[in-house]
Amino acid sequence: VKLADLSTPALLIDADSLEHNLATMAAVLPGSRLRPHVKAHKCTSLASAQRAHGHRAFTCATPREVIGMVAAGLGDDLLLANEVLDPQRLAAMAALQDRAVITIAVDSHETIDAAALAGLKYALVDVNVGLPRCGCKPSDAGHLADYARSRGLVVRGVMGYEGHLMAVPDRTEQRAKVAESVEKLIVASLLVGGDIISAGGTGTYDLHDQVTEIQAGSYALMDTHYGGRGHPFQQACFVLATVISSNSEYAVGDAGLKTQGMDHGNPSIEGATVRFLSDEHVTFVPSAQIAVGERVRLIPAHIDPTMAMHEVAWLIRGDDVIDRWPIDLRNW
Amino acid sequence: VKLADLSTPALLIDADSLEHNLATMAAVLPGSRLRPHVKAHKCTSLASAQRAHGHRAFTCATPREVIGMVAAGLGDDLLLANEVLDPQRLAAMAALQDRAVITIAVDSHETIDAAALAGLKYALVDVNVGLPRCGCKPSDAGHLADYARSRGLVVRGVMGYEGHLMAVPDRTEQRAKVAESVEKLIVASLLVGGDIISAGGTGTYDLHDQVTEIQAGSYALMDTHYGGRGHPFQQACFVLATVISSNSEYAVGDAGLKTQGMDHGNPSIEGATVRFLSDEHVTFVPSAQIAVGERVRLIPAHIDPTMAMHEVAWLIRGDDVIDRWPIDLRNW
Repeated sequence: VKLADLSTPALLIDADSLEHNLATMAAVLPGSRLRPHVKAHKCTSLASAQRAHGHRAFTCATPREVIGMVAAGLGDDLLLANEVLDPQRLAAMAALQDRAVITIAVDSHETIDAAALAGLKYALVDVNVGLPRCGCKPSDAGHLADYARSRGLVVRGVMGYEGHLMAVPDRTEQRAKVAESVEKLIVASLLVGGDIISAGGTGTYDLHDQVTEIQAGSYALMDTHYGGRGHPFQQACFVLATVISSNSEYAVGDAGLKTQGMDHGNPSIEGATVRFLSDEHVTFVPSAQIAVGERVRLIPAHIDPTMAMHEVAWLIRGDDVIDRWPIDLRNW
Repeated sequence: VKLADLSTPALLIDADSLEHNLATMAAVLPGSRLRPHVKAHKCTSLASAQRAHGHRAFTCATPREVIGMVAAGLGDDLLLANEVLDPQRLAAMAALQDRAVITIAVDSHETIDAAALAGLKYALVDVNVGLPRCGCKPSDAGHLADYARSRGLVVRGVMGYEGHLMAVPDRTEQRAKVAESVEKLIVASLLVGGDIISAGGTGTYDLHDQVTEIQAGSYALMDTHYGGRGHPFQQACFVLATVISSNSEYAVGDAGLKTQGMDHGNPSIEGATVRFLSDEHVTFVPSAQIAVGERVRLIPAHIDPTMAMHEVAWLIRGDDVIDRWPIDLRNW
């Protein structure tokens, strides 16, 4: 199959750029130093490629991701880096523990009770390191660990996500802020015990020397939010559009805001200016008039929600489509 | 099934508000005066409810919507209000013409050629009435209609979408601008011939007296973009979230930016201030501290992409879940 044969809109993954990104990250953070976050791609085929680069432990954001990873034979060591209260979904994960190691984040008595009641075995204490989201105060982490152990859970350590620091433009300032943030996690780790100190993301993957593992995900496919910041990763994901209307002022492609995450703003098109997106259209100004039927590639502004909007990604090399990867971990 | 039994995030449709919206619109634009746009909900169950209110003709934005509507027995008169060049998808639609009437928008020789080659029978000439997107110049519409007829297509009339005028705050100014926009469509209609003059949307549904039909879609479920503008439609769609973390400053719900369209900004929560959304989380400030395990409803800022992100919607009345509606027209 050739790229030209694909119906549009189509989600493309450039095989060589993906391979470059996976190899580059595995060289810096080999094996268990990286716990790739599957929420960034929601695709077990891509997770298998990450495993082929030596990473056997993965991070998930939803029960469905955990369950899908186990079904794909990728359940060696799964961290659900999120709080869950739903008894049905917790039970569904607990039922998989004969063939997978599943560890869940907890940050309250309620989340500990829910995990213990469902029969989950392993937990990490989720610590707030500055991002106003989930996670307990560092000073509460020890008590929560004690409580979790009293409920029968094995507490493997701590996690924290410095999401508010991913895009600090100045690297020296970013490094200092990450260190300050990690200090909170280290304190919590001393109170909690266990082997794991899990943190980080694509924006800070190379700024950590005290944690045991990094949870990066976006590095594999990238987006315009993480691009252009000097990271050694290439843009590997695109949304292919066909020009369905064109005139002397602008052109219209058939990939709209239902094809990509818009929370970080508009996607980009090389050599063109994107004016706006509608549900099913992108209106853009090309550098020279473009013919109806030509194709353009949109570079997503935010990779995670973009992947979640597609049923399938097409793995390409040059003009060839070399594989079809279902986005099998989407939905809830 | 009770609302409390649903796993979250969950897409909810309030049955009574939906019914109110459908009845209110059908009173103003009965029968064929409204051609409901299914891109706003992507759900044949909801389209069936619209048909029960007397509307037998529908508007679609993608071939998949057209094909799904025919499969659901809703193919009496389907307008694909968008340009398509893909020979496979055009052929798939043409193959359904023994049991459906399918009309496609065209705005160029290329789109006419593609429709004719695939064996589609009916077309509308898409006219640009001010929104920089698809559509020909009004003065080109007659020539395009002649060309389409020379290629064997039956040209049923014209369509245009004044999408740039949906949110003009002042109604008098909006009315004047819509009239100016429609004037372009009327001119094109005189040049093209045919019975159909199709235009409009939820923001302008009551400002048209010259077109034969209105393409409104958002009115059925609504969002914060169309809400608060004085339209007589109620908010009927919500994303249900469970509070998974809470402290004295803020709370975190388990519905993030993968659960709703973010192009119009953050969703709203009644009685709370939404701070930001992450992939799987909403961080918000409630009016009083809220307990872990409590539930909140997010009101989407943009209904169309929100629907496209879910597999299923739950029809509710009070605390009861009364039906499960698959979002069966999503993807491409």
